[in-house]
Order: sequence, then C-alpha cells, then structure tokens
Amino acid sequence: MTTDIFFQIVTPKEALARLFERLPAAARQERVGLGTALGRITAAPLISPEDSPAFARSAMDGYAVRAADTYGASEGLPAFLTVDGEVPMGAAAERPLQPGTAQLIHTGGMLPPQADAVVMVEYTQPVDETSVEVLRPAAPGQHVIQAGEDLAAGDQLLPAGHQLRAQDLGVLAALGITEIEAAVRPIVGVLSSGDEIVPAGAQPAPGQVRDVNATTLAALARQAGAEVREFGVAPDDRTELERLARAAQDACDLVVISAGSSVSTRDMTADVIGSLGLPGILAHGIAVKPGKPTIVAVADGKPVFGLPGNPVSAMVVFGLVVAPTIRRLLGAGPAYGPPRRRARLTRSLASQTGRIDFVPAALSQRDDEWLAIPVLGPSNLIATLVRASGLIRIPLDAGGLAEGVWVDVEPF
Amino acid sequence: MTTDIFFQIVTPKEALARLFERLPAAARQERVGLGTALGRITAAPLISPEDSPAFARSAMDGYAVRAADTYGASEGLPAFLTVDGEVPMGAAAERPLQPGTAQLIHTGGMLPPQADAVVMVEYTQPVDETSVEVLRPAAPGQHVIQAGEDLAAGDQLLPAGHQLRAQDLGVLAALGITEIEAAVRPIVGVLSSGDEIVPAGAQPAPGQVRDVNATTLAALARQAGAEVREFGVAPDDRTELERLARAAQDACDLVVISAGSSVSTRDMTADVIGSLGLPGILAHGIAVKPGKPTIVAVADGKPVFGLPGNPVSAMVVFGLVVAPTIRRLLGAGPAYGPPRRRARLTRSLASQTGRIDFVPAALSQRDDEWLAIPVLGPSNLIATLVRASGLIRIPLDAGGLAEGVWVDVEPF
Repeated sequence: MTTDIFFQIVTPKEALARLFERLPAAARQERVGLGTALGRITAAPLISPEDSPAFARSAMDGYAVRAADTYGASEGLPAFLTVDGEVPMGAAAERPLQPGTAQLIHTGGMLPPQADAVVMVEYTQPVDETSVEVLRPAAPGQHVIQAGEDLAAGDQLLPAGHQLRAQDLGVLAALGITEIEAAVRPIVGVLSSGDEIVPAGAQPAPGQVRDVNATTLAALARQAGAEVREFGVAPDDRTELERLARAAQDACDLVVISAGSSVSTRDMTADVIGSLGLPGILAHGIAVKPGKPTIVAVADGKPVFGLPGNPVSAMVVFGLVVAPTIRRLLGAGPAYGPPRRRARLTRSLASQTGRIDFVPAALSQRDDEWLAIPVLGPSNLIATLVRASGLIRIPLDAGGLAEGVWVDVEPF
Repeated sequence: MTTDIFFQIVTPKEALARLFERLPAAARQERVGLGTALGRITAAPLISPEDSPAFARSAMDGYAVRAADTYGASEGLPAFLTVDGEVPMGAAAERPLQPGTAQLIHTGGMLPPQADAVVMVEYTQPVDETSVEVLRPAAPGQHVIQAGEDLAAGDQLLPAGHQLRAQDLGVLAALGITEIEAAVRPIVGVLSSGDEIVPAGAQPAPGQVRDVNATTLAALARQAGAEVREFGVAPDDRTELERLARAAQDACDLVVISAGSSVSTRDMTADVIGSLGLPGILAHGIAVKPGKPTIVAVADGKPVFGLPGNPVSAMVVFGLVVAPTIRRLLGAGPAYGPPRRRARLTRSLASQTGRIDFVPAALSQRDDEWLAIPVLGPSNLIATLVRASGLIRIPLDAGGLAEGVWVDVEPF
C-alpha cells in the first residue's frame, strides 16, 4: 500500500510537495456576483473591458487651456486668456476650447476638445468676470489624466488565483464588471474519532469529553475559503470509522480526521486512511512540535489528513498543511503567508534541532512594544487555546530562542 | 454650530478621541448560535459553567497506580504490581484501584478511584499477563490532569469585547456552551456624492465615471464587523444630498459619505454633515496624506464621516477612523491593530513632518526577504488600488524613509 520511505518523519514542506504533485491542477469555477465576491479566489484573469478614464480628465481645480497659449508666461508677463465659461461636472464641455481662451474646470472634470493642459487655480489671477492671467507656462498634458492612462482596455486587472479584496471589488464595479469567475469553494469533511469523544451538543458520561476539534477545524476551514460538512464522532471501531471516513470522502473534496488521544485510536485512524484509496499515505509523521503524529494522504484524487487529537496540535497542523491544501484546491496564487506581529520574547525557549517548534504565546503591549509571553504547561489543555493569541515559530534548526529577542508572532 | 478649534487639522488619534467621548458606551447585544459566531464580538464575559476536565485524566499511555506503591522503585529493585485490567476509553474504570495493583490506562482515560498517579509505559516492564514491574517511583499527581485543572467552573474564558476565533468556538463547544451574547452589528450607511459619479450598474455618459467608493467602503465595513445599507449617489444638489444623508442617518448607526472630487462637492458635503444634528463637526481635516479632507462628526449620537472622493484616500481614512469607530460601536476591546509584514523598502520616500504619510506598495518576495515597492504616480488612479497590496506608514514626524530600511507594511 505504501513504502517505507513514507513512514519517515518529513518536514511540512516535503509533505505538501508529495501531496500537491498528486492533486488535480485546475479548480472548478462558478460565476459570482460582486456583492458576494469578497474573499473569493479569481478562477481566470480579469481584464479591463474599457479605458479608464474613458475621457481626458482634469487632475486639479483650475483652467483648461491650450498649452501653446501659455508659453513664456510669467508673473511679470502673464498670458492673458478670455474665460469661456465652466466645464460642468459629469458632462462634456458645451463647446471646444477656442484659441486664446480658458474654461474653468474642476478636479475630475472632462477636458474640452482642443484643450491639452490644466493650469492650477493657484497660478492664475482673475482680471475681470471674463478674463484671467496665467502666471506660469503649462506643458501639454499637464494636470491631465489621459483617456486610458489609468487602465487601458485589455489591461490585466487581476491575475487568476487572486483573493478579492474590498478595493478589487470597487475597481471591478468602476469598470462595469458585476460578475466574475470564482473558484468553487472546496467542501471539507470534518470527522473526529475516539471512544472518549462525544459531540458538542451531548452530555458527556463519566470518562467522556465533548469534541473541541470538530468546531475549531470547521471554523478554520471556512476561514481558509472552504465549505464544511461535519461527520460527527466515530467510536474506536474500525468498521464504523471506515464507514464514516468513506462517506466523507464520497461527499467532500478534502477530508480531515482528528484522532482521539490514545495511541490505539491513532493507529486505527492511520489504518483506515491508508485503506481509502490510492496512492494512500504520503507522510506519516511531520517534523513539527506539537503536531508530529500527522498523516498526509491522497485517496483517489482527494486529500485526506489525520490530525492529532490534541487541539493545539490540530490547529498548528491545520495551518501548516490543511489550509495550504485548501488554497491549492482553490487555485490560489502563492500566499503571502500569515502576517506577523513583531514582539519581544519574555523568556528563553529551548527547542530540538531537526524540527519546527511552535509555542503558543499571549501578546501584551508595553509602551510601544509588544511582548510575546509563552503559554507553557501541558499542550493538551484547552485553556491554552483561549489564553494564547499567537504562535512563536522556532525554525527547524534554531535550537531555541533567547529571552529578549524579537520574534515574529503568527496569529492564532 | 462649531467653533474654530474644530477647523484646525488634527491627528486621527485626536479626531477619534473627540468622537468617542460623544458616543454611547454600551453596545446592543443579541444571542447568537456557535455556528455563526465566528468573528463576532462578545457582549459579556464568558464564564466556564463546569470543571474541565470533569474528572482526573491520564496525560500519558501507561498504568494508573497508587504512588505509594512505587516509592523506592528502581531498575535494580522494581516495584511489582498486579495488573487489574484496563481502563476503557470514554468510561469509568470497572472498579477502584486496589493496593498493590495497576490498571492499564490510555492518554485521556479516566483515572480509577484510589489511583493518584500514572506511570509511563516506557518505565514499566511486563512480567507476565497479569503483572508488571515499575522501574521508577511515581509522585502523587504525576501525569494526571486533575478535575478542573484545565478550567474550573466559574473561570473567565473570554472577556467582553473579544472577537471570537476558531479555537474560542471549539472551547465553548467543549464546555457545552452553544449560544453566546454577541454585540449587535452596527448598520453602516454608505452614500456617495458628486455630479460626475454614477452607480456601478449604470452606463456613464461623457464626463461621468462609475462609483468606486460605495463598493469598496461597503466591503470594508462588512470586514470590520458591520452590516451595510447603500444609499446610492447624490448629485451636487444640496437638498437632495441632505435628503439622502438624513435617510441614511435615520436608518443606520453610522454614516459614511464619500464626496466627489471637486472642491464644491466637498464643501457642500461638509455643509450638509454639519447640519445633520448636534454636536456636529468635530474635526475638519486630518493630518494624513492621502486623506486630509476628512470630516468627523457626531449628529444626534450617530457618527458621520465625510471621506475624500479619491479612492486610495477613502480607504486609508476608513482604516484610520471609520473601522475603529465600528469596533467601538461593537464594544470591541483594544485591537492589536492590523498585523504587519516586514519588508525592505526599495526606494527612499520623502515625507512632510507634522502629518502621517501612507504610501501604497506592492510586495514581492526575494529569497527569504520581502520587498516593499512603492506604487507612485497620481494617487487618484484606480490602478493603484489593484497594484498595491500594502501601505507603508511614515510616522507623524519622521520626515521620510531611506531606501533599504525595514518597514512594517500594513495589509491593503
């Protein structure tokens, strides 16, 4: 089913490389209206359908002129122009600009035919109701945004694989684009396993605890751009776990199984994941703490992940391997990765070389500085989840971090 | 209506201070199910209703023991214990732990009555089917998570004003909390003005352009936690602008008006905002570039903002004053502010002291470093909106930034 090489501990990067080369390249796409497109991923490049602006516009408040009429103008020897009315906002000028004349124009106004420059009002001096002195020469094109200078018809606005931001929607609206082709959100199936786990809605009997991970992982999957279907909790029964895992695989594009905390449940989960389809398990164990007992698999073209039952571990691993896979299924371009917050580490942290360590941290502001306060203690406490607001990453071969150094804290 | 002091340019911080002291303190609240609570703001502290765990649990795979039975144990002289069965996962032990015995237990298993410690399986050695040697002494409480050790009934889980994250929902689910009191989303009314502006769905006549800001500002308001009502585009007609502004004020909790690009439209917008109610305009002009022609007002208890028509300016000002006001209306706690990305500046930037400058920048990765590439040129081009992915902030009195320095780029 799998060869021995897959059972060595690998880095998250290597695990993703093995996974991505076995996934289909193209995302499915659907038409989406602008009103619901925020955060969606473009499935095709977006091209400007028209010139913007569609006409030459003034970039200043002042006078539309023929530049040639102002050549040689100075404070001592101004150019004298007849004021031939005002360009209305939102409409074309009433007549072309005659030689020796100027038309009053506002920022954003449409340049009259024959005008080729704008003189700022600060560099003019009214003579009377119908004439003005220009105190500086204007070069052709001065303070004018030419038609198509901002965006020309045929320009690429946004590439495929781009996550749409507020301003992207504004630009699309401005260009008359009201619908776009977006990548279809992949459906993520979330399944928990373990005899000791009961669903969040149930009353636990002695020895049982309510499921943390289904709720957390479902919310993280939605944040990453997926839709979610929940498949509940499978008991430590191979037949039932396999039945639910297959149901999730059939109905979804990606399956996440968080195993219970006991070794036997984890082993059973690995066994079931390995049996779901070819090529099967690609990595069993990643060089990350917490998060080592992670399974990365592809079964009949669909990614399947076995995450640790420890909720902190499950969150760390979700961010490292599941979220990037959702982005890959969406056809999303290379992400910038999570933005970080620079903070000063309040105590030294040890780390083992050869693995990436993540330490949950609380953030606290002192004067203009942020402090990263490691939340230590057993990593399986759920209190860690509410107390920490960031993760400190200790790189693969750093061997630790000293008190007082600056660290880049990832949001958690 | 307002005194002269309000017409001096102020910092965004000062403008917000004037605004916040005139806003109601408490947010309205509503009950929200966990399934739709992601990103919502807690309106009251959340308290743990029960101990977690509800029972003493094993933190390791091994044997539940009485610590006293292992005192003095060593590799040379192990403690000999009779194995009295296995604690099932998700259920209580079948019987209390008798002196001189051990029960096999898994991580997360419920400690049997009379047991007070767990010995890791690595420090034991099986003798036969029913007995085991313990090679190290166990201290009472070793590898045991006591009832209530993680969270005790009555512990505060999360404060009021907290934005709910994926893991918060997981923890609430684990404690059987399925509904919470959330701050009601404020309704933001969005209105544009200017004779040259037509709604996104319309075909512009010569001299007209489609509205960028309504779509952008609506999406930003939703991202900040508000609901949005759009009020279209008002022409440069005082009566009509005032009619639409009053309609927005009546129907919404906060009003954002983006003025057209001409000075006359901006003046009319200021006039209308000043007439909507008391105390009126609190700041007219903020020390920010781009974004100076900003109006901050309160009219009969509701914040009203006049934003510049330039879409880059409108976005910058939204982030500086409107988004914090939405958070304030939500009763949200002090935000961490946007996370930043450290990047190396590719060219020197000049800045005037006495104001905060924001320069849009594209981000590009080179080796392990991010580069911040300023997007220069006229700030009123909509191409800037799609080309930039960040904002470089030049502080109030920095006077500029040199090529090659590290800058913290805010997401844009």
